[in-house]
Amino acid sequence: MIPETSIDVEAAERRIRRHILRTPLLEWPGQGLWLKCENEQLTGSFKLRGALSKILGCSAEDLRRGVVAASAGNHGIGVALACQIAGSHATVVVPRDVVERKRRALESLGAAVVLADGDYGVAELEGRALAAASGALFVSPYNDPDVVAGQGTLGLELAQQLTRTGKPGQVEVFVPVSGGGLLAGVGLGLRLGGAVVRLIGVQTEAAPYVHRFFYGGDPASVVESPTMADGLAGAVEDGSITWDLIKRVADDIVLVSEGEIAAALVEIARGTGMVVEPSAAVAVAGARRSKGDRRIAVLSGGNVAGGLLERLAAR
Amino acid sequence: MIPETSIDVEAAERRIRRHILRTPLLEWPGQGLWLKCENEQLTGSFKLRGALSKILGCSAEDLRRGVVAASAGNHGIGVALACQIAGSHATVVVPRDVVERKRRALESLGAAVVLADGDYGVAELEGRALAAASGALFVSPYNDPDVVAGQGTLGLELAQQLTRTGKPGQVEVFVPVSGGGLLAGVGLGLRLGGAVVRLIGVQTEAAPYVHRFFYGGDPASVVESPTMADGLAGAVEDGSITWDLIKRVADDIVLVSEGEIAAALVEIARGTGMVVEPSAAVAVAGARRSKGDRRIAVLSGGNVAGGLLERLAAR
Repeated sequence: MIPETSIDVEAAERRIRRHILRTPLLEWPGQGLWLKCENEQLTGSFKLRGALSKILGCSAEDLRRGVVAASAGNHGIGVALACQIAGSHATVVVPRDVVERKRRALESLGAAVVLADGDYGVAELEGRALAAASGALFVSPYNDPDVVAGQGTLGLELAQQLTRTGKPGQVEVFVPVSGGGLLAGVGLGLRLGGAVVRLIGVQTEAAPYVHRFFYGGDPASVVESPTMADGLAGAVEDGSITWDLIKRVADDIVLVSEGEIAAALVEIARGTGMVVEPSAAVAVAGARRSKGDRRIAVLSGGNVAGGLLERLAAR
Repeated sequence: MIPETSIDVEAAERRIRRHILRTPLLEWPGQGLWLKCENEQLTGSFKLRGALSKILGCSAEDLRRGVVAASAGNHGIGVALACQIAGSHATVVVPRDVVERKRRALESLGAAVVLADGDYGVAELEGRALAAASGALFVSPYNDPDVVAGQGTLGLELAQQLTRTGKPGQVEVFVPVSGGGLLAGVGLGLRLGGAVVRLIGVQTEAAPYVHRFFYGGDPASVVESPTMADGLAGAVEDGSITWDLIKRVADDIVLVSEGEIAAALVEIARGTGMVVEPSAAVAVAGARRSKGDRRIAVLSGGNVAGGLLERLAAR
């Protein structure tokens, strides 16, 4: 079990603060609902925080050897930008069916893109093998103390925003969950910032690994089904440091259906004008399960918007 | 007259390369038209290049004293992010009618926002006075060699992309013009990169300052009218270094009507799925004036999209 003290959110905040946006916490009036708009982060997703935290904490020797990530999207983009900032070099192994737009985004950030011979699972295996063979550093999207600490800066920021807005009473914070790096980090960051809240992770019914674990089941028994929230799909690494952290910081994990996710997506687009990722809409779908009037949904990413490349490619 | 050699695009590129995206040059198939998608730059606009070029070139003493900008939008956001990266402090003087969303974006970047007692012209006067009184550095959005050199990195990047795509024959490049920093910089950057093109600045008929000057008239005789391309409105500073640079690098300046800008906006949204600023659509409107089949329009910014804050505020 990893000691909580080894996840240093404060140090991560010092490393990354110059390179990220402090994203707004906005009220959705009349709903008792606030949105933490991490979809407005520089790369359109919170993943930049974790990647910067990890890579800006590397030694000069590590940076010289370069970094490998496996990702179909936001994590890869975060790692590529972090490497550019740190003066290192990123190689991103992408699933075979990666959309052209994300591939181009990675290349525009100077990353080398390697096409895996299969899906995300295969990309991760190939990425680890590549890193082992080349001496480069493999950066996990969640199973790494420095990555979790980086995501934790979102929680710390949120704690500061809660204090400023003086929101009284019991606050519920809803966070999308896949590998659990964001949920664990946000929980630790909120604590560090002195915020007392009820913390709820939200997963899609289609890939309920963390939910199964949280309630004493065996994540290996999960049979995954397709989900529009593709950022939340895929098994969580066995023995991930996030497992225990989540048990300690989260008050509940709830599951939402594909229909609830779709309804939340439409509701967000109509009500706020934002097109966010289905993986982010999951947090609003979770918040809808509560009758609380002090609810905060973490909109984790918005990269689905502006699909120029797909549309141009489809003509 | 400023010597061209004092605009060092190569040095600017070295200063800023870690902190910006190399934005894609995309073909709009079947149209003989390519889009340089600077709307996909980190802050949603090219202004980040010039601001970073200026601020990363400052002395430690300048950074300690802080930076002042006057801006209703993209320039202020560029200066705020550049200051955050450089470890300096930005004060942005905004026109009284600034939209809440842009104000919040500035604050989320750690900038101090000062509301001017009037429009952009008043904001600029107040900003200069504030800088003079506090010893801070006032950063002009275009009348500064390091800012022009920063915008020039877009031209250098474009020259490299032209070489890679091997586009043969006479290429025309259409660039939106307000103060002319982007046009002058792109012209110098294209030359530096060895690209031989026809360079055309595009202005709105509503604020034809550079066009009037380019064709031998007196910019002071311009009577401005309202334009949806608000980023291109406002008089150009007397004696701006951009005047002569533009005469040397541009082959033509064309004017487009509000109707042509609106048509281009709709066409871009339908054809590519991107919602860009009217100030950027101007380049496509200009390109439509040509029958050439090797046309490139510089989409200078896309910050109009995702108007979450306005919509929330309007509820």
